[in-house]
Amino acid sequence: VQKPSHISADGSISMVDVSGKAVTARTARAEAHVRFPGDAARALRDATLAKGDAFVTAQIAGVMAAKQAASLIPLAHPLPLAKIDVSFDWVADDVLRIEAFASTSAQTGVEMEAMVAASIAALTIYDMAKAVDKGITIETVRLLEKTGGKSGHWTL
Amino acid sequence: VQKPSHISADGSISMVDVSGKAVTARTARAEAHVRFPGDAARALRDATLAKGDAFVTAQIAGVMAAKQAASLIPLAHPLPLAKIDVSFDWVADDVLRIEAFASTSAQTGVEMEAMVAASIAALTIYDMAKAVDKGITIETVRLLEKTGGKSGHWTL
Amino acid sequence: VQKPSHISADGSISMVDVSGKAVTARTARAEAHVRFPGDAARALRDATLAKGDAFVTAQIAGVMAAKQAASLIPLAHPLPLAKIDVSFDWVADDVLRIEAFASTSAQTGVEMEAMVAASIAALTIYDMAKAVDKGITIETVRLLEKTGGKSGHWTL
Amino acid sequence: VQKPSHISADGSISMVDVSGKAVTARTARAEAHVRFPGDAARALRDATLAKGDAFVTAQIAGVMAAKQAASLIPLAHPLPLAKIDVSFDWVADDVLRIEAFASTSAQTGVEMEAMVAASIAALTIYDMAKAVDKGITIETVRLLEKTGGKSGHWTL
Amino acid sequence: VQKPSHISADGSISMVDVSGKAVTARTARAEAHVRFPGDAARALRDATLAKGDAFVTAQIAGVMAAKQAASLIPLAHPLPLAKIDVSFDWVADDVLRIEAFASTSAQTGVEMEAMVAASIAALTIYDMAKAVDKGITIETVRLLEKTGGKSGHWTL
Amino acid sequence: VQKPSHISADGSISMVDVSGKAVTARTARAEAHVRFPGDAARALRDATLAKGDAFVTAQIAGVMAAKQAASLIPLAHPLPLAKIDVSFDWVADDVLRIEAFASTSAQTGVEMEAMVAASIAALTIYDMAKAVDKGITIETVRLLEKTGGKSGHWTL
Repeated sequence: VQKPSHISADGSISMVDVSGKAVTARTARAEAHVRFPGDAARALRDATLAKGDAFVTAQIAGVMAAKQAASLIPLAHPLPLAKIDVSFDWVADDVLRIEAFASTSAQTGVEMEAMVAASIAALTIYDMAKAVDKGITIETVRLLEKTGGKSGHWTL
Repeated sequence: VQKPSHISADGSISMVDVSGKAVTARTARAEAHVRFPGDAARALRDATLAKGDAFVTAQIAGVMAAKQAASLIPLAHPLPLAKIDVSFDWVADDVLRIEAFASTSAQTGVEMEAMVAASIAALTIYDMAKAVDKGITIETVRLLEKTGGKSGHWTL
Repeated sequence: VQKPSHISADGSISMVDVSGKAVTARTARAEAHVRFPGDAARALRDATLAKGDAFVTAQIAGVMAAKQAASLIPLAHPLPLAKIDVSFDWVADDVLRIEAFASTSAQTGVEMEAMVAASIAALTIYDMAKAVDKGITIETVRLLEKTGGKSGHWTL
Repeated sequence: VQKPSHISADGSISMVDVSGKAVTARTARAEAHVRFPGDAARALRDATLAKGDAFVTAQIAGVMAAKQAASLIPLAHPLPLAKIDVSFDWVADDVLRIEAFASTSAQTGVEMEAMVAASIAALTIYDMAKAVDKGITIETVRLLEKTGGKSGHWTL
Repeated sequence: VQKPSHISADGSISMVDVSGKAVTARTARAEAHVRFPGDAARALRDATLAKGDAFVTAQIAGVMAAKQAASLIPLAHPLPLAKIDVSFDWVADDVLRIEAFASTSAQTGVEMEAMVAASIAALTIYDMAKAVDKGITIETVRLLEKTGGKSGHWTL
Repeated sequence: VQKPSHISADGSISMVDVSGKAVTARTARAEAHVRFPGDAARALRDATLAKGDAFVTAQIAGVMAAKQAASLIPLAHPLPLAKIDVSFDWVADDVLRIEAFASTSAQTGVEMEAMVAASIAALTIYDMAKAVDKGITIETVRLLEKTGGKSGHWTL
């Protein structure tokens, strides 16, 4: 914790220095789930939501948010991005799974881009369906896999 | 669903028109949880994370993201904000709860601002602790309460 | 023109001062056209574009850009917005018309919000269809109507 | 079109994957035209506009918007940029032509950066002159030329 | 200071709650100075800088940054703005003074908007002149005056 | 100065073309000072400020602003960043010095990123302490050192 009594030249908050890292191909996959109580899932399935097509809107929101990851997460690095993808599948009658994928060729990974894309896509689904039920819940947002970089392949 | 065969003047995606709504005081509270496997919770508690004080960083990230809610959530309305707050408490040895509060005096509510603040604060905790364990999971992001507006008081 | 020889306290660039204006309901409608050479229009109509549903994507891009109008147009005022709408109709086999609507309750108008929404929606259509034909052209971007404010109702 | 009945892992909206593309020098040129009815062109030529020097303002707006292209156009890639340029010439007494140039060394092209720069510069001219005449129209926004990348040189 | 040992519901970082404050007209004026060593001031006066008209560019940068004050300063409130102005005068042969003015009708003041506008205008002057001399220094950035709100008129 | 009488294809504002420059490791260090009149310095030292831990908040604000340098400074180039650091030390009882460091591997330097980080960190300290004393002044914002690029090492 940064305290006035020992303010130092290095500070308490520190961005990781990636200047010595190799530029390599890197990918990450993350997921989020949206659980719908009552009739909200059916409303979404029937595309009867007053705000329109929640799926395409959430895909775009996720893609656009991934491009803003470095301005949302304080110590994340701004990166070029080669590809961002957001997709959906129903894993239960009332649970929508969102998967986000990000790839780059850079000195650091794209885990936060994938996590942000999945989260903002889920929040967009919430926004579009909340008129039906405010109790919709986002569950289990997590990293599934990453490739590239010094630490190499990681899978949940 | 917007289809090329029936492109119409009203379109398939529709922002709610709030021009007829009253300007009233409105608040919202939301929460998110971060579950830490293994020793990651202890690392966070001991403030030994290489990236520094995760809590203040996450508070600020949540507050700043709430101010960007309308540029992250496609159909959300840009609003003035009177107050945003992000706080933390440990609800189990390995589960950190994040609560976000937003208030405004506007024609529409601040549910999305509170949900975004809680989510981005949680993602920031993830970012700061992921070097310890990439399997940290965000759980149960949901609205707890809202006040104000035509629909009035709502609680989970 | 601001010249180094007469740098003055008022400067050469001047934002309109709206502090003395009344808060009134204001709306604006603008349009843009996209002309498709060759088979590009058919590709769009058949929804065969590799990038997916261009219409919903362009709607969302237009809505989101309208919310950023004051950060794109240097002397525009930041405003709350009550509603933004983007819609499409084919006015010829190869000409897509885009109409954007914006409304607010504020001290100044939303003409630029409507113009920006129509323009960015058109540019998004271009982006999604440019792999088919880079010669797609945006034509006749203009204000159609405005209501509210001291100058009142204006129509093209 | 993304439909609830066939939600799939790949989704309906798809950003082009540029991870396999070569980093090459790429440029793009685009243009936009602004047609002034009545005395608006003379007002602009005489630099009598109340908002000041419309030309420099529009140049800067175009340059700054090009840097935001990836946050305006949903499926555009964030890129480093080596140069953006916006210039003006009168092609008729009442028609101002705006030309925008963008260059980069990246895995994908800068067509959208040039198109966005030309469009936002034109919208800024509109904003600065609209107090004289709201009927000013933006015409013929199009790509003029691109170089670099796999598809090589393209000219209108 | 937020410490892991006493994480509490209120947190250590706290945005001021302005929900109980009156909406009143508020203004603020701030200044910054730019000191030019050697020939840099003459280069600026002669408008011979390779990057073009530094004054208009700095005006616009200051105005646009004021509109982003709430996304730059973590605990600042997003506000509508009625007017932002940036102007210049030479207070010595080698010292350029920049004055920024901001006004609003809101629940909180615009001191930070004026301070940000003056600072970013000064940084833009630095950017445009740094090829001539990297030792250009920004000096004495401060608030000159504020009006409105509960604390009323304040002057340096 | 851009004048309507000689509008030319090159324009008066010109971004430096970095397309021919080598990608090299580049760093920059900048500083800003905050002078506190009366008891404001003690309030900051005692961490009694109502807005919380000013130091961590200012660090984060500086880091996040550095990532936005190209959207704040009109002719700055968007860059990847390898590291940004903001630190503090008291150089007198009432003068806080802020030092910012930025590094990248790119075609142009990070001087503006370091200058922006130091400035916005100083403005954040001002924001957090201004309730104690509005007369707090930011002084001597300047570049200390840069490395890399064609012009090589520069030090104040």
